[in-house]
Formats: sequence, structure tokens, C-alpha cells
Amino acid sequence: YAAGDPMWGYFTAVAGQDGEIDAEELQRCLTQAGIHGTYTPFSLETCRVMIGMLDMDYTGKMGFNEFKELWAALSAWKQNFCAIDRDRSGTVEPHEMNQAILSMGYRLNPSTLSAIVKRYSKSGRIYFDDYVACCVKLRALTDVFRRRDSMQQGIVNFMYDDFLQCTMAI
Amino acid sequence: YAAGDPMWGYFTAVAGQDGEIDAEELQRCLTQAGIHGTYTPFSLETCRVMIGMLDMDYTGKMGFNEFKELWAALSAWKQNFCAIDRDRSGTVEPHEMNQAILSMGYRLNPSTLSAIVKRYSKSGRIYFDDYVACCVKLRALTDVFRRRDSMQQGIVNFMYDDFLQCTMAI
Ligand SMILES: [Ca+2]
Ligand SMILES: [Ca+2]
Ligand SMILES: [Ca+2]
Repeated sequence: YAAGDPMWGYFTAVAGQDGEIDAEELQRCLTQAGIHGTYTPFSLETCRVMIGMLDMDYTGKMGFNEFKELWAALSAWKQNFCAIDRDRSGTVEPHEMNQAILSMGYRLNPSTLSAIVKRYSKSGRIYFDDYVACCVKLRALTDVFRRRDSMQQGIVNFMYDDFLQCTMAI
Repeated sequence: YAAGDPMWGYFTAVAGQDGEIDAEELQRCLTQAGIHGTYTPFSLETCRVMIGMLDMDYTGKMGFNEFKELWAALSAWKQNFCAIDRDRSGTVEPHEMNQAILSMGYRLNPSTLSAIVKRYSKSGRIYFDDYVACCVKLRALTDVFRRRDSMQQGIVNFMYDDFLQCTMAI
């Protein structure tokens, strides 16, 4: 029951009158909560991607359960990033990022993996904000794919509108 | 022939030793060229999306022909945005954005359109950088779809790796 949950008060304060959290509210709240620690706070773009991951009805907002789910995922990714960024430089190397993605259980061929890691790099390194954006997108797009691949054959059909709606929102 | 093209000297100066333009070089060059005019310069994220639109071999870089193609597309989108943003506030309204997308020839159902416009809004308005990111993604994802929809039936198959590679890069 939400009212007995220690995070409920926090959620309602952030969500405001409409009772849901949009991308700008999420950015403010994650920045204030300091989840990024010593790293740069999350960009609005990454917060939009976070909303997109859980926003099944495309309202651009997040309810309490989604918020808790996101929080748990972020904590795990943060821990993961800290474990790889051993020298606390705030960035990780491409080969470390490859390793991290594979260890999350994604089975990708080397060219896909290398294209993805390159996309989220800056001057050949991966910053925390981009790392999280990449993790969120990988999870969201894999979810999109799995929901349509009910026979688990590794191949899905998309109609144009459905394809755009899923991919543009993330 | 490239060497006779007035943009060739500009391109080679921006591209540097490797002869291709990556997202950071693109951001610097678009900012210096002032394509954004009085609007906020393009974010690195939007520049990555621009590269992703034309980067068929997933190197994260752009050659001379791609660069010219991008330049032409950007000029058209800029003109389009200026035409909608009549009061020069730097933002356009959701219904104006809907109209702009439809007038580009995209046939989207209203729920898809509304989800997309919401995704690229900030406080209920659309800024130039987000407008361009949205136009680039719409074009890139529609291209991805069309290349697979050779029979023009409005439905395509995706394998998991192919799906991720296409969508994560944009
Ligand atoms: Ca709210
Ligand atoms: Ca490091
Ligand atoms: Ca270069």
C-alpha cells in the first residue's frame, strides 16, 4: 500500500498536483537526491529516455510504481559504473563498457556492441550520463522487442506507426 | 568532383586528419557556422543523432557527401522552424509541431503524433534543438523502416541485433 511506503511522501512532493512525474520533475529530483554522486547530473535528454522506458501509455509521465522501479535500476547501474570506473575519473573505457553490457546479459554480436559503445562515447570515453542513457535504451528497446517476440524466435514484425511510436519515445 | 566544390575546403578543415566528421567536430562546426542563428546551439546529443541518420556503416563519422546532405536538410528544417515560430520566441507550440510533421509528408495516427511531440517538448513547448532532433529521428527511423519494407506493405521484420543496431545508433 503506497501510503505506508517510505518513498511515497518523497514521490508525492516531487510529482506535484498531477500526481505523476514528468521529465523535468525527474531531472530536478534526481539532481537534488544526488544519485549522480560526484558525476555530472543527468541531462534532460537522459531523463526523457528514463521516462520513455517505463511509460507504457505514452503520457510522458511516471507513476509511483514506475518511479520505484526506475530508482532501483538507477542504483544498480550506478553501482556497476562505480565498479568499472576504478580510478574515479568519471569515465570508463570502451572495452570496459563492452564488458559491462555483456555482463548485464545482453547477447549482441561484436559489430552491434561496438556501434552502440561508439554512439555513447565522447572523445573515446563514456561518461556516467551517457552510460545510463545507453543502459536505459538497451533495456527499453529490448523490452519493446521481447513484448512482440512472444514465441522467442528472435524476430518480430513492426507496423510503421508502432515502430515509430516505440522508438521515437525512447 | 569534391575538390571543385565550394564546401570542400570547409569540410576538410573541420574533418581534420581522419578526413571524416565525428559528433564533436560536427557540434563545433555547426556552432561556429551559426546555423542555429538566434536559437541555442545544437547539443552533442542532437549532433550524434545527425551522424546516426547518415552513418550507414556505423563508424560514428560522416564523409563529405553525407555532410552536404545534412547541411541541406538542416537548412530546410531551420527555414521550417522559423516559419512556424512567428513571434521569434525560440519555441513552437505542440499543435504547430503536429502540423509541421504532417506537412513533411509523414502519415502518422494522432496518438503516435501526440506521443512524439510530447517527447520532444519542454514545459509544453518545443525548442529548436529538440525540433531538429525530432526531425532527424523521424527521417532516420522512417528510412530504416523503408529500407526493410521493400514491398511497401507498411510492415517489416527485424532480427534482435539489427533492431538494436538501427535504433540505438539514432
Ligand atoms: Ca507532475
Ligand atoms: Ca575511469
Ligand atoms: Ca575527424
